[in-house]
Order: sequence, then C-alpha cells, then structure tokens
Amino acid sequence: MAIQPLLKSLQRRSLHHSLGERSPLPNSSHSEEVLPNCSHQMKERRDRFAWDNILNLVEGAFLFGTNMVNAGNMNGSGNLMDFLDEPFPDVGTYEDFHTIDWLREKSRDTDRHRKITNKSKESIWEFIKSLLDAWSGWVVMLLIGLLAGTLAGVIDLAVDWMTDLKEGVCLSAFWYSHEQCCWTSNEATFEDRDKCPQWQKWSELLVNKSEGASAYILNYFLYILWALLFAFLAVSLVRVFAPYACGSGIPEIKTILSGFIIRGYLGKWTLLIKTVTLVLVVSSGLSLGKEGPLVHVACCCGNFFSSLFSKYSKNEGKRREVLSAAAAAGVSVAFGAPIGGVLFSLEEVSYYFPLKTLWRSFFAALVAAFTLRSINPFGNSRLVLFYVEYHTPWYMAELFPFILLGVFGGLWGTLFIRCNIAWCRRRKTTRLGKYPVLEVIAVTAITAIIAYPNPYTRRSTSELISELFNDCGALESSQLCDYINDPNMTRPVDDIPDRPAGIGVYMAMWQLALALVFKIIITIFTFGMKIPSGLFIPSMAVGAIAGRIVGIGVEQLAYHHHDWIIFRNWCRPGADCVTPGLYAMVGAAACLGGVTRMTVSLVVIMFELTGGLEYIVPLMAAAVTSKWVADAFGKEGIYEAHIHLNGYPFLDVKDEFTHRTLATDVMRPRRGEAPLSVLTQDSMTVEDVETLIKETDYNGFPVVVSKDSERLIGFAQRRELILAIKNARQRQDGVVSNSVIYFTEEPPEVPANSPHPLKLRRILNLSPFTVTDHTPMETVVDIFRKLGLRQCLVTRSGRLLGIITKKDVLRHMAQMANQDPESIMFN
Amino acid sequence: MAIQPLLKSLQRRSLHHSLGERSPLPNSSHSEEVLPNCSHQMKERRDRFAWDNILNLVEGAFLFGTNMVNAGNMNGSGNLMDFLDEPFPDVGTYEDFHTIDWLREKSRDTDRHRKITNKSKESIWEFIKSLLDAWSGWVVMLLIGLLAGTLAGVIDLAVDWMTDLKEGVCLSAFWYSHEQCCWTSNEATFEDRDKCPQWQKWSELLVNKSEGASAYILNYFLYILWALLFAFLAVSLVRVFAPYACGSGIPEIKTILSGFIIRGYLGKWTLLIKTVTLVLVVSSGLSLGKEGPLVHVACCCGNFFSSLFSKYSKNEGKRREVLSAAAAAGVSVAFGAPIGGVLFSLEEVSYYFPLKTLWRSFFAALVAAFTLRSINPFGNSRLVLFYVEYHTPWYMAELFPFILLGVFGGLWGTLFIRCNIAWCRRRKTTRLGKYPVLEVIAVTAITAIIAYPNPYTRRSTSELISELFNDCGALESSQLCDYINDPNMTRPVDDIPDRPAGIGVYMAMWQLALALVFKIIITIFTFGMKIPSGLFIPSMAVGAIAGRIVGIGVEQLAYHHHDWIIFRNWCRPGADCVTPGLYAMVGAAACLGGVTRMTVSLVVIMFELTGGLEYIVPLMAAAVTSKWVADAFGKEGIYEAHIHLNGYPFLDVKDEFTHRTLATDVMRPRRGEAPLSVLTQDSMTVEDVETLIKETDYNGFPVVVSKDSERLIGFAQRRELILAIKNARQRQDGVVSNSVIYFTEEPPEVPANSPHPLKLRRILNLSPFTVTDHTPMETVVDIFRKLGLRQCLVTRSGRLLGIITKKDVLRHMAQMANQDPESIMFN
Repeated sequence: MAIQPLLKSLQRRSLHHSLGERSPLPNSSHSEEVLPNCSHQMKERRDRFAWDNILNLVEGAFLFGTNMVNAGNMNGSGNLMDFLDEPFPDVGTYEDFHTIDWLREKSRDTDRHRKITNKSKESIWEFIKSLLDAWSGWVVMLLIGLLAGTLAGVIDLAVDWMTDLKEGVCLSAFWYSHEQCCWTSNEATFEDRDKCPQWQKWSELLVNKSEGASAYILNYFLYILWALLFAFLAVSLVRVFAPYACGSGIPEIKTILSGFIIRGYLGKWTLLIKTVTLVLVVSSGLSLGKEGPLVHVACCCGNFFSSLFSKYSKNEGKRREVLSAAAAAGVSVAFGAPIGGVLFSLEEVSYYFPLKTLWRSFFAALVAAFTLRSINPFGNSRLVLFYVEYHTPWYMAELFPFILLGVFGGLWGTLFIRCNIAWCRRRKTTRLGKYPVLEVIAVTAITAIIAYPNPYTRRSTSELISELFNDCGALESSQLCDYINDPNMTRPVDDIPDRPAGIGVYMAMWQLALALVFKIIITIFTFGMKIPSGLFIPSMAVGAIAGRIVGIGVEQLAYHHHDWIIFRNWCRPGADCVTPGLYAMVGAAACLGGVTRMTVSLVVIMFELTGGLEYIVPLMAAAVTSKWVADAFGKEGIYEAHIHLNGYPFLDVKDEFTHRTLATDVMRPRRGEAPLSVLTQDSMTVEDVETLIKETDYNGFPVVVSKDSERLIGFAQRRELILAIKNARQRQDGVVSNSVIYFTEEPPEVPANSPHPLKLRRILNLSPFTVTDHTPMETVVDIFRKLGLRQCLVTRSGRLLGIITKKDVLRHMAQMANQDPESIMFN
Repeated sequence: MAIQPLLKSLQRRSLHHSLGERSPLPNSSHSEEVLPNCSHQMKERRDRFAWDNILNLVEGAFLFGTNMVNAGNMNGSGNLMDFLDEPFPDVGTYEDFHTIDWLREKSRDTDRHRKITNKSKESIWEFIKSLLDAWSGWVVMLLIGLLAGTLAGVIDLAVDWMTDLKEGVCLSAFWYSHEQCCWTSNEATFEDRDKCPQWQKWSELLVNKSEGASAYILNYFLYILWALLFAFLAVSLVRVFAPYACGSGIPEIKTILSGFIIRGYLGKWTLLIKTVTLVLVVSSGLSLGKEGPLVHVACCCGNFFSSLFSKYSKNEGKRREVLSAAAAAGVSVAFGAPIGGVLFSLEEVSYYFPLKTLWRSFFAALVAAFTLRSINPFGNSRLVLFYVEYHTPWYMAELFPFILLGVFGGLWGTLFIRCNIAWCRRRKTTRLGKYPVLEVIAVTAITAIIAYPNPYTRRSTSELISELFNDCGALESSQLCDYINDPNMTRPVDDIPDRPAGIGVYMAMWQLALALVFKIIITIFTFGMKIPSGLFIPSMAVGAIAGRIVGIGVEQLAYHHHDWIIFRNWCRPGADCVTPGLYAMVGAAACLGGVTRMTVSLVVIMFELTGGLEYIVPLMAAAVTSKWVADAFGKEGIYEAHIHLNGYPFLDVKDEFTHRTLATDVMRPRRGEAPLSVLTQDSMTVEDVETLIKETDYNGFPVVVSKDSERLIGFAQRRELILAIKNARQRQDGVVSNSVIYFTEEPPEVPANSPHPLKLRRILNLSPFTVTDHTPMETVVDIFRKLGLRQCLVTRSGRLLGIITKKDVLRHMAQMANQDPESIMFN
C-alpha cells in the first residue's frame, strides 16, 4: 500500500515516455502556472516526489502490520478474475487536479461490499474480516477524533506558552505559560493572580527593570523580535516542506469534498507542517485564528487514517465521507461545539453527506471534543473556547441594536471579501507574489509594532474575545469593568445593577475603537499570505469589539436616560438591564456570518458557547440580517470567493441556476466546431485510436455503432484506453498497430491474415449518462450536482450530438453570471 | 384559489364521464380496499367532497384579500401565451395517490421565478410584488411557528386540565387543573402543594368522603367513566369528520414528503379534528403520546399556510419544503428542542432537504418554541418538556449498565415493531378492523381498570417520565426518593451522598416493575387504533422505568458494596456516585432509538433536555447499542414498517441497494410480455390515441419516431394527453377522430381532404430521463432517489427498449429483499 505511490509514479513516467513525452494531463500547463494562491511551489513539490517516496518506503515497513487485512482483500479480488480480465495497475484511479466520478465510485464500493458479503459466508475467518470491514468506519472515526483532539490540545498549549514567551519567561519552569507559572506559584494571590515572582518579563530578566521607559522599549523590541522570528520560521517551513499548508484550507477542502483531486493537500507532511506553523503564526500575534486551519489539520488526520483501510483508501468517494466527518471533528475541537461542528460540515463544507455520515461525524466530533477536554488546555475543564454565562434576559427593544450589529457584520463581510480578493488577485498577478517571505515579515512587523502599545491588541485575539464576551461580575478586574460602584451596595452578587462607567471604561472604549480600525485593515492583508491563517477569530474579534462598544453605549444611555420612552418600559433605575457582553457576542456572530455566510451552524456554535436557548433569538436576528445585507452586495462568501479566484471546479449546491438555456447551448462541439471525436465499436485500429489520443486531450471518448449512424454504445475513459492498449501491446501476442479494436461482444469479421483484433469491451462504460438536447440546463446542473457526474452525453432521438463536461457546466454558469468563463481552470 | 377545488372536481367528473366511466386512477380499486390502517373511510370522504367544497366556497370569500397577489400572478402568466399555447385547467397537477415528479416541479418553480424576476424590472409595483414573493417563504415559516406553538400550548393546557378532571375538579374555577388550582390557592403550603381545599376529588364533591373504600371505588369508577367518555368522543370525531386524523401521522408524512399525494391528509379538517381528539385521547389515559401527532398537526398548519401563497400552493415540490420545516416545528414544540427538531426533520422525516430549508426550518422551529414558551403551559418558564439537572458526573464503569439499557432498548424496539405490525396486519385483514369504536372502548377500559390502582400508571405518562428523570434532591417528596437519611447530615444540599433505600423505594420498584409490564403490553395494542396516537412518550416511559429500576439497583449495589472491585475506584462511601435519574434518561433514549431508529436527532433532543454535553456519551452509547441490536433483527423502524404495511411507494434514502441486477432485469415489458405501448410522432390519429388510452392504464406513453425505428423523441403524460385531446375537440375546429396527432415541429404531409391535424408538441416532455439497459440497478435506484423521478425510459444504442417506474423499482427492491412485491400498491 504505502509502496504503491512510488510504483505508480514510476509507471506514470514510463507511460508519458511511451506517448512521446506528452503529458496526459489535459491542463497540465495550468497546474504549474496558476495554482492556488498559496501553491506556487507545485513544481518544487514534484521534484521532491522521490524524497516523499523514500519516506513512504520507510513508513511502509511500519504500516505493514496494519495492512494485513488490506493485502488479503487485494489478493482475494485478484483471484476472482481470469487472465484477460485482470485489472491493469492504476485502473480506477484519477489524475491529479481532476474530478472524480461519484456514481462510479459508489458502484465500485457496492461491488466491493458485495464481494465481501459473499465471501463472508465461506468461512469464519472471512466472516470476521467482513465484520472488521463493517466496523472500520467507526474505528476510523474514533482514531480521527482522538488525533484531532490531541493535536488541538497540543496546539492550544503550545500557543499559550509561545504567546507568553514574547513577553517573558517562567523561571521555575520555562515551558510554563504565564498563567500556569503563577498558578503553580504559592506567592500569587487571587486578586493579583497575574503577578508572581517566578514570571519575569524580559526586561526584568535581562536588565532587572520592570518599569520605566527603557524597560518598556526593551520589552517592545523583544516582542517584535519574537514575532518576526516565529513568522519567519513559519513561512520558511511552509515554503520548504509543505506549500499546501498555507491558508485556511477550507476553500480547498470544499473543492476536494466536492470530488476534486489535489494530491498531497491532505498529506502527512501537510499535517505535520501545518500543525507546527499554526502554533508559530498564532503565537506571532498576527491577525489570524487557528479555527480554519484546525479543520484542515483534522481533514489531514482523516486522510491519514482512511489510507490505513482499503475500504477508504481505494475509493475516492468513501474517502470523502471520512473527510466530511473529519471536518466536523475539526470545528468541534476549534470551538468545543460538536453539534455545531457537524452542522458546519453539513452546511458549509460537505458535498455528499449521507445520513450514515451524519451519525459518524457526530461520533468523531464528540470523541474529538472529549479528547480535547481530557487534555484540558484551558485549565478550566470547559469544553468550549469562550464560555460565558449571562444573568440578565434580553429585552425586545434591544433587537434594534442587535439588528444594527447585523447590518455592520454584513457590511464588514462584504468589504472584507472585496478588499481581500482584490489584494489576493494583485498578489497572484503582480510581482508581489514572488516575495512571500518578505510579505509575511513585513506584515508581522507592522502588526507587532502597532499592536504592542494597545493592551487590547497586544494579547492574543482569543483572550481579547473572551474578555469582550464576559459579563462584568463582582470579581472582574478588567479595565472594561471599571464602573463607579454605588457605595451603598457591597454584596458581591452576580446581578449587579447598571452603573455609570468609570474612567477605565472610557479609556477602554478609545483603545477598542483603535483596535477595531487596526484589526479591520490588517486582516485584509493577513488572510491569504503563505502561512496557515484562519478567519474565524479575526472576524469574531472585529464583531466583538464593535458589539462591546455598542453594548456599553446602550448601557450608559439606558443608565443616564431611564425616562426615555424606549427605556422606560424595561429598564428601571437600579436594574441590571443591559449586558454589554451579549452585544459583543451578537456582533461576533454577525461579522462571522457576514464573512462566511454560515447560518444554522453559526447560531448553533454560538448556542453551544452560551449553553442556553435564551440568547438564540438575538444571535439569529443578527445572523439573518448580516447574511441578507451581505448577500445584497454579492452572494459569495469568502470561501466561495477564494474557490473562484483559484479556478477550482466547484459546483456549489447553494447557487440556483435560473436561466433558460438548454443542453444544446452548452454542449461541445458548438456549431461550426470540428465534430465530436468518437470511437466506433468495431472499425478502428489500434493506430487510429492512438492517433486520436495523441491529437486530442479529452478525458474520454464516446463509442458509437458507426460514424454514420452515430448511435451511442458507451463511453471509454482516455486513461483506461491508454493503459489497456499499452498492456495489450506488451502482454497479448498479435496485437500490433493494425489490429482492429472492438467493443462489441463478438469480434468483427476481419479479412484473413489481418492481425489479431483487440477486445476492449471491459473498459467500456456501458451505461454512460445521457440527456436530450432539449433538456433545460437547470436540470442538467441539478443532475451534475446530485449525481456528481464528470460528463454527460447529449443525444437527440437516439443519435449522439455532443458532450457536456463539468467544466462546460461551470463555464456556462460563469458566463450566465457575467463572469469570465476562463476562470474555471481544471477539469 | 379556494374555489378551484370545486371546479376541479366537477371537471374531473365530467372527464371521467367522457371516457366512459373508467376511472383514470390506475389502481383506484386499491384505494378503496386497502388504504392505510386508519383510512378505511376513504369512500366516505369522497362522498363528503361536495360538503368540503361548500366550505371551501365560504372560505373563498374570507381568503379573497390574501389572494390578491396570487391572482395577479395567475393573470400575468396567462397573458404571456397566445391562444393555442394557453394552458388547460388542471395541467401540472397530480391525481390523488400518485407520485409527483420532482424534476418537473423544480423546473416549473424556476420558470415562475424567472417570470417574476423579469417582470420585476418593469415597474415598482412588480418589484414590490417580487420582493413579497421572495419573502413569502419566511412569512409562511413565521405563521407556521406561531400557529404550531399556539396549538401545542393549547393542547398542553387542555390535556392538563382534562387529565385532572378524571380525578376531581377545582371549585374556585372549574377550568383550572389540579396544580393551577392549588397554585392560586393561598392555603396550600410548599410541602403540601398538591393539597388545597379548592381542589376536590369526585368522591369529596359527590359523597363528601375523601378516604375509605367507598370513596376509592367511586373515584375509580368515575376515572374509568371519564376515560371511556373521552376515548369514545375521540374515536367518533375521527370516524365522522376526519378519518385521516388517526395514528401518529409520521409514516404518511414521510411518504408525502417523499413526493406522494394524499389529498386531505394535511387538510383543515384533519388539523381541527386531530387537535381536538389528541387532547381527548391523551387525557383518557391511554398509553400514547402527543409528540408524533403534534408533527402531523404542525404539517397541517404548514399545508394550510402554504395554500395561501401561490408559490407553494401551486407547486407540490415547494410545498414539501414548507412541510419539512413544519415537521421540525412540530418536534420543536413537542419536546422544546428546536435544534433536535430540525435534525429530526432532516434525519427521519424529510426527503428533499436543501440548505435553504435547513435555515428556514430552524427559524420555524425557534418561533414555535418561543411561542410555546410565552404561553408557558407548564408554568415554569421552561421550554423543554422534561427539564433535568444532575449534579454528579458519570463514571466509566457505568457505561456497562448504560450499554445493557441500550440492549434492552433494542430488544424492546424489535419486539414492539414485530408485535405491533402483526396486530395491525390482523386488524386490516380480519373482522377486527370493522369495529374500530369498540376496539378503542375496550382498550381504554382495560387501560383505565389496570392503570388506576398503580400510582405510576394512574398519572399522565409525561409526569411519570418527568419524575423518573429527576434526581432526588433534598426537597423531593416523591416515593422514589424515600431514602434512609443519615441523621448526622442536615443541610439540604444538592450533592446528597448515596444512601440506603427506604421502604418507599422498594415499594416503588415493585410498582414500577408492574407498570413496565403493563406499558409494554398495552402499547402494542394501542398504537395503530383509529385515534391519534404517538409513540414517543410510551417508548420513553418503558425505557425510563427500566432505566430507573436499573439505576436504583446499581446505586444500592454501590452503596452496600463499596469494596467491590468495580466500585472501589470511583465510589467511595459518602459520595454521591450514582444518579438513578440519568439511568432513566439513558433507558428512555435507548427505547426510543430502538423503536424509531433515530440517532443524531435523538441524542440532540436528549441533549437539549439536559442542556449539558456532559451526559451525551452515555446517551450516545445507549442509542448506538440500541440501534445496532435492533438492526440485527431487522432494519426497519416502526415508521418504515407501517409504510410497508400500508403499501406506500416510499423509496427510503437509508436503504442500500447492493444487488447486481441491471436495468434490463427490471424494465417493463419483460421478455414475453406485449410490447411497450408507444405513440409515434406523426402517424397516429386521435382515435388511435384514445383507444390506446382506453385500453391501458399507464400514466404516460413514450413517443418514438416510428414503430420500426423506435428512436425516442419524448414522453407524454396520460393525464395531459386526455386533457389536451378533450380541449382540442371542444375548441379547435376540424379536429375529429381521424385527425392525425403530430408531435413534430412541422405538421406531417397528409393527403388532401383529410381532416385538420392536431399538434401536441406542447404537452410532450422533450427531455425524458433515459438509462441504458446495462445500467446497474443500484445506479437506477440512486437516480430515482436523488432526482425524484416518476419513471425512466430504458434504451439500447438509441433504441427504446422499455420503461421503469418508481413502482417497478420498489417492487424489484422488495423482491430482492425476499418480500412480497405486490405489497407496493400505489404509483
């Protein structure tokens, strides 16, 4: 199994040779030029192929034990066929950057399943093997959950430590973060739980000064230095070892799940490098989050474990079921929200999501969440990233500011998507893209320089969000809770009435406003750089800051103007009526919704954070408003926009195709073009077919009765034709260039002395998908989406007229939406 | 709009007449004989058709205002076409008990949408209309949520009152339930909150005695009398006014959502009668719940509101989107679990569930839940039906009893499904089914007689479940919490250590065991009677009783044997280690899972009840075990079993078809059968076609170039052929029996003096769905499922060979699963 890639790549190379150095990849030129904004290094990757394979070989030995069952299955299936029907190696696999055929994958899996069921009746051992096969799905889910949870825990711990390393070090144990350091110290009191002698700022350690301008400048300088070091390490690692580890990964995962092949995108190197660099970039203080990349990391885990079981490794369709579940596990550990994770996978990421996958995804998400909790990286036994508890209900009148926050979220989402896409396009097309390391260094430097002086941008973004979400309890020491206390009220209860804001709150408001502007601008330039970068946390931060500002504003307005008609009914003096933390949460949901256009999953994730249905209505109002406002300016979320930017062949299930075109308008050949390249069932020679293959770059050829009648018999894949002819020339005696290829049951009558004919019915797909030329395109689009086709043949009264590929459909859709149809790049 | 049904039915009748009294319903004989186990009254319904229509007419005036927009749309679409292309009335609708064509519905909706979009550019008014149309989906959801929530609240209040009415009456206000009566009374103390002078048992009121044998017997007698009265009223109402109101409704709703037409099943009468009778039967104390019927009630609301908007009323596909959301709202109010409701609709009920529906369902579910909460029928501001809060975590060793409960749930599920289906089959086939009223009376009498002496069966089942779920707090006065207190411990804390069970607990165990046996047996006979009856609550009750018994057992074992190796690690003396309430909840989930085979939605509903992720693992372990155990004995859940029993054409998305048959094995005509009835494109006369229609009962006919070439042109629906010919004969001059019907663009060359030909290209479906004869059946099944086809034509190299209908597919699947293929009854 693990040795196979090497064999395959060797075979592929020799194959290219035999066809005169012509690459069988139709658009292979594309893949080297214009790959995903973070995949310029494609060519390098290819060069490192051999190096990968050596690693694979080493690993092969390690995996040997695990693969016993697979090997058994492989031998078993081989024995069933006679010599002529023996499959050539590589049949049934796909080229890189090609689309899979879902129907074919599904039917291959049913065949496999049928074989196992039949064999299971033969002996006890076979029965046990069939049971193992049936259970392997659950085993894979368990393993994914365990690994994804562990990795998330490790990342959380490492980020905590390294973020604090920028400011100082723990003398008692250097691997302790600030909080852990003072937690284990006996000298810290509860009030001053951040201060303990073991934790020393760099200035204290180096020049023995904790206050004063020089200490501040030293700390500032070291903060920037650490940030630059982390960022440089990250971008270098990504460039050198795993170019695919950059970005959030969600656009590519969406494309892969929809049935596209990007080899290595979910590989082991990507997993390793992405995990390491994610820690580095988050610690460097850049305006990015770890949530999106965690989904990528979880999918890499899913891909790794599915490669251990032949059920999944040999079937691209089944593998994608595992990946869908892995994506759910990723979100589950990112937020501690297993149900939200499953819904996120269902709503946002997945393409083919049968109910069986739903149940397994839920299992994987739960295992991952509980693994993370048992690692307990936040030290509070909480599952969720931002645990909040509010004590006050919300009032109907507050819906107005909530909806305003929704509008803000929608506007910000639109602005962000437009600016970010424009910047990424510029990066792709101009010389800017040639210096990714320099770009990262520059953005990191700017971020660190601007962020340090402002306490709200200096700390890590998730801490910031956490503080903004919090309600001001009696024990809260934050500057945001610096209210003027009523001297008559002493008891430290949760239900503190609204109070006038103190100087600290006003101070914080200014700092937050500056932080808001800074975050809004810097995030546009950060997302899309050649480092792992998630968008959830920065979006939520922008929303949370805006929300908290609005919340404090409403609170103070209600306190000072109890008698206004809008407050009179629900906010009496001395009551705790406005919770600014709730506004922050609503704002975060609105901004996240505006950028990603998530709906149900967003609300459910937020619901799992608060744990009460109470606040679902505000969240929902904001999410709906934000989606509507953002949709008014453009239907695409950030992930779809990046998919389009990269030209992936992604057929979105959410887009509605409402134009009145017919299949005949889309099919190739168009009027005036050369006729369709077809094979005939019993009159073409090997040489004819080889010439056709050489002269065209189509992925397959329809087979017709004869060129005159054009009645369709079936469809032959280019890849399998090439392999079959090569195989026959090598192994079958008498097959020469003049041999007639026939696809019929019986050989055609050939004149005596002519060479031995070659039967290729076996590689013929006898049930190609057809539609008539009058079929409305909306139906065709529906069929492509729901059945996951690669191509579809067009007929009129039984005669073959043309072909529609997925790329044709996507191009047509782009054209109808007044976009550049040439933006779709891959098949 | 509302007047149309009358017109339609008149037209339909005259149409039948013109065809010589032959019903166009292919299997019309079935529909009168063997309808759903609660639909024998089919014939009665037909007779009452006119009566319905009069009501419709009256309502027409009422709805006039609402329908302004619709009327506008209708006129608009009419104007676009010239005279010849004018649609005949009734085109595009379906017969009762027929399957819809999803692809056609979808493309009709796209047409409508396109028209509105084009017109919206013409004037401001049209633009506003297009906005209204776009928003109508949300308006419908809002209305459904409001009405479903209100109805659920009213049902809860009425059930509360009427259940208590069986025992006594409130003197201060007879419409108060026991709890409300004593709540408003000043004389009740907190400890004795059930006792107040205003609430009088019947014996106190009638003979002034509250204790003693005679009072007991009087109360017993009146309890039975009330129960019988309620049950008799319910069954009579159902029989006379709305035969479809019986059962849980979920099997039929699943079938309807999969694209089947059962007229009147979601009608206004059904809504009204089901709501009223649901209150009656739940109050009568029968072993049934209101949760399933609430889904039916919510779907009736959905159907009612969708009939107000032409977007939904005129499109069976769009209407089903609304119904899916309504089902979610139904579960949402049944349990107070909006997310669980959406997942239930997704997992269990719905067939076609686009993401847009997900979001809207969620909205409807939330509105319904909050409407219910603002009615506050339980008087505790809680949304959920069984609110529980546990204070103790669970331990790994407890997984063993949890899994045991899962096994119990699976076994019970299997047993229940087998026995219930056997009994329902007997009811259908023997004379038993002829006396539904008597049956209900008998079962009610038996239930009441056995239930009264046992306090756990006397009270309403939901109260019982609620008590079983509860943890024994310090203030709990229930018999189940009669533990022997440690005299040294006085403070009333939540975290009470495990204690030895008192006499009350042992007493309760015996009573619960009896209740368990009783519930298990009586539920088998109750579910399927001609009254509204849900299965969730009885299943949960069985599981909760079993779970509580196991829970108390484990608790006492752990208390008395702290030193056993299995307890030693986690259950020290004096600790609160076992929560029997949690066992009850796990048992309830296991039994519900065993009967319905729900998975994710079950766990999520239970999660929403407890509100903490803490207990998801036990619930999930039990649900998984229960599903696996039950699936080992048969894959069908109770709803699928009832669908099969009734012969509905339901193509389950969950079934996997793994056999190796080809389309050619399934298509009609089979080898040896008469050739396929086809139309030719330009050589058949009106008379030929009429004869063909008369002699066959197919739903449609393929149109070929000529009988010799058999190359497929398109497909004509029987219904539309009949309407078109009738219309042409009436309106078009020169169309006589000898007129040639042509489907080509140009009229065929006919000899001079021959009658005027009739062009019917307009009713021809030019893009019929085709597969080749070599297509594997698994692919065909997949296509039928995913695209929602009614039929599919089979070709070989462009020549028409046969046809496969949905019924053929279902029959083939039944045959492959060794079931009776004749059990599928409808098209």
